[in-house]
Amino acid sequence: MTIYKAGIVGYGNVGKGVEAALLHAEDMQLAGVFSRRAGQGVRSLTGAPVYPYDSASEYTDDIDVMILCGGSAGDLLDQGPHFASMFTCVDSFDTHARIPEYFAAVDARARQAGKISLISVGWDPGLFSLIRVLGISCLPKGTENTFWGKGVSQGHSEAIRRIDGVQDAVQYTVPVDSAVDAVRKAQQTKFSARQKHTRECFVVAKPGADTEQIKNTIVAMPHYFSDYDTTVHFISQEELDKNHGTMPHGGFVFRTGQTGKDLDSSHVMEFSLTLESNPEFTASVMVACARAACRLHQQGQAGARSIFDIPVGMLVDMTSEDLRKNIL
Amino acid sequence: MTIYKAGIVGYGNVGKGVEAALLHAEDMQLAGVFSRRAGQGVRSLTGAPVYPYDSASEYTDDIDVMILCGGSAGDLLDQGPHFASMFTCVDSFDTHARIPEYFAAVDARARQAGKISLISVGWDPGLFSLIRVLGISCLPKGTENTFWGKGVSQGHSEAIRRIDGVQDAVQYTVPVDSAVDAVRKAQQTKFSARQKHTRECFVVAKPGADTEQIKNTIVAMPHYFSDYDTTVHFISQEELDKNHGTMPHGGFVFRTGQTGKDLDSSHVMEFSLTLESNPEFTASVMVACARAACRLHQQGQAGARSIFDIPVGMLVDMTSEDLRKNIL
Repeated sequence: MTIYKAGIVGYGNVGKGVEAALLHAEDMQLAGVFSRRAGQGVRSLTGAPVYPYDSASEYTDDIDVMILCGGSAGDLLDQGPHFASMFTCVDSFDTHARIPEYFAAVDARARQAGKISLISVGWDPGLFSLIRVLGISCLPKGTENTFWGKGVSQGHSEAIRRIDGVQDAVQYTVPVDSAVDAVRKAQQTKFSARQKHTRECFVVAKPGADTEQIKNTIVAMPHYFSDYDTTVHFISQEELDKNHGTMPHGGFVFRTGQTGKDLDSSHVMEFSLTLESNPEFTASVMVACARAACRLHQQGQAGARSIFDIPVGMLVDMTSEDLRKNIL
Repeated sequence: MTIYKAGIVGYGNVGKGVEAALLHAEDMQLAGVFSRRAGQGVRSLTGAPVYPYDSASEYTDDIDVMILCGGSAGDLLDQGPHFASMFTCVDSFDTHARIPEYFAAVDARARQAGKISLISVGWDPGLFSLIRVLGISCLPKGTENTFWGKGVSQGHSEAIRRIDGVQDAVQYTVPVDSAVDAVRKAQQTKFSARQKHTRECFVVAKPGADTEQIKNTIVAMPHYFSDYDTTVHFISQEELDKNHGTMPHGGFVFRTGQTGKDLDSSHVMEFSLTLESNPEFTASVMVACARAACRLHQQGQAGARSIFDIPVGMLVDMTSEDLRKNIL
């Protein structure tokens, strides 16, 4: 069996999740973690070596695929093209609006290097995107609906933490049950933002802060909260740490559509995820995609790819024969 | 835009569904229907020509992809390899145990002809198979569960119709709600056949037939009914025609699994279909796969393929750029 040697760039929650996922993948092995905090006491969960971020270029012969675990906002815009010029890579770039320019930048470097870079994998973008395409292909006359949650939105939590007087905060995005049910029963497919999701905020105020003003600032915040029904709970730091320290998430993708000459038969496709740990599941998807990236590179392919370009059988540690015999 | 010209072999419910689906696919066109009943008054829904089954070999230059709509039991074992030697093909071969031999037979002919044959597409095998592979790849430490229904099983209906004294019958396969819920909540993953599905039979007895004996014969039938809780209702032919003449179906595929170094985070992936017309939806999936088969053939590929070998983006009438920009 081929064993693919993987590297991890960035050792936050997703990086640690990748390390754990590699431990359970028999055909993959962790070669090392690359971190800007190497030498500052950072130790890996499994005892794998932790190398300085800037030393990665010395390991091009030892690593089959580099799994980029940085965030989209800061790290990946530079890191993606940089590592694509040295390694076959996988990342979870999720700034939807900038995907075309990011893809182009990574593609140019990866082609030049003769490597594969599989961008924007995880569950959304990623699995949810794949399901949307299956929906469009099988029910071209139809409507798509995605609901997210219940889960923690890092971006919204961060927006609250920037408000004056806020010490800490966690924001949950919550799908509206009645809207999910209406889509599931093919009764309604168009909704306003407010009809699809509510936002629930758990906020720790600094001592002496004006909680009424914090609350008003949150619910009125454009883009983030003003289009939603938002609930704000003030709690203690202890309570936040105790009850809101995990990172559950999930969501639903629906495609409802019609078939037949006169489009008189209705169908509903539904895909949902219920995740106890968003970063660990994202990491697990990235590891499956890393396997596929290695295989594409072995076929002699080069350039950037998205999840839409990957035969799904390549994601899994099974032969085509076994897949046809046991899973088809 | 490239327009792919499709042919239909076999003009039953699925064949008619394919004709309707082609009508709604802007990049595809129906070139003709091939039927053993051509010349016996068979007319297509859309006015497309109906040719004799044996004349297909005269149309190899006019048809980009042949969509084989025959059944697995009788037609496809011969038809698949036969048409693979002349056309790029798609079929819905669903006799799971014989897929390896069928694939080998079709593959040999397709390679020789320089054509693609995409076998066993539809929703199961097909979409459900694809979801199972996504499940294994993203949650390798986990368990898969598939539930079918509520829907009409043609095989079980047919088994009842063969019983002495039975005039007509429809059998529904029904998933057990409590089992579906237990999987959804990751509370239980192993079930007996009886715990997962019930079987509900609507039977029209011939005049004077012994209904008690018919009922006993049904519930005791090995493989088909003896492992399930089976309910038998005797009704009139009018009632059967009126209330049980449509072909709804559907089902659920679950993958439940754990991630993390110590596998202590649980996740649930769920995919479900609720279909008003099983043959029309199957046909719609086949048409999307026919598009992908044409594209693979255009790339110069040849041989048999399964849904696991197809980049999902190939199923849909959109460019890679548009997919990345609008769907990823």
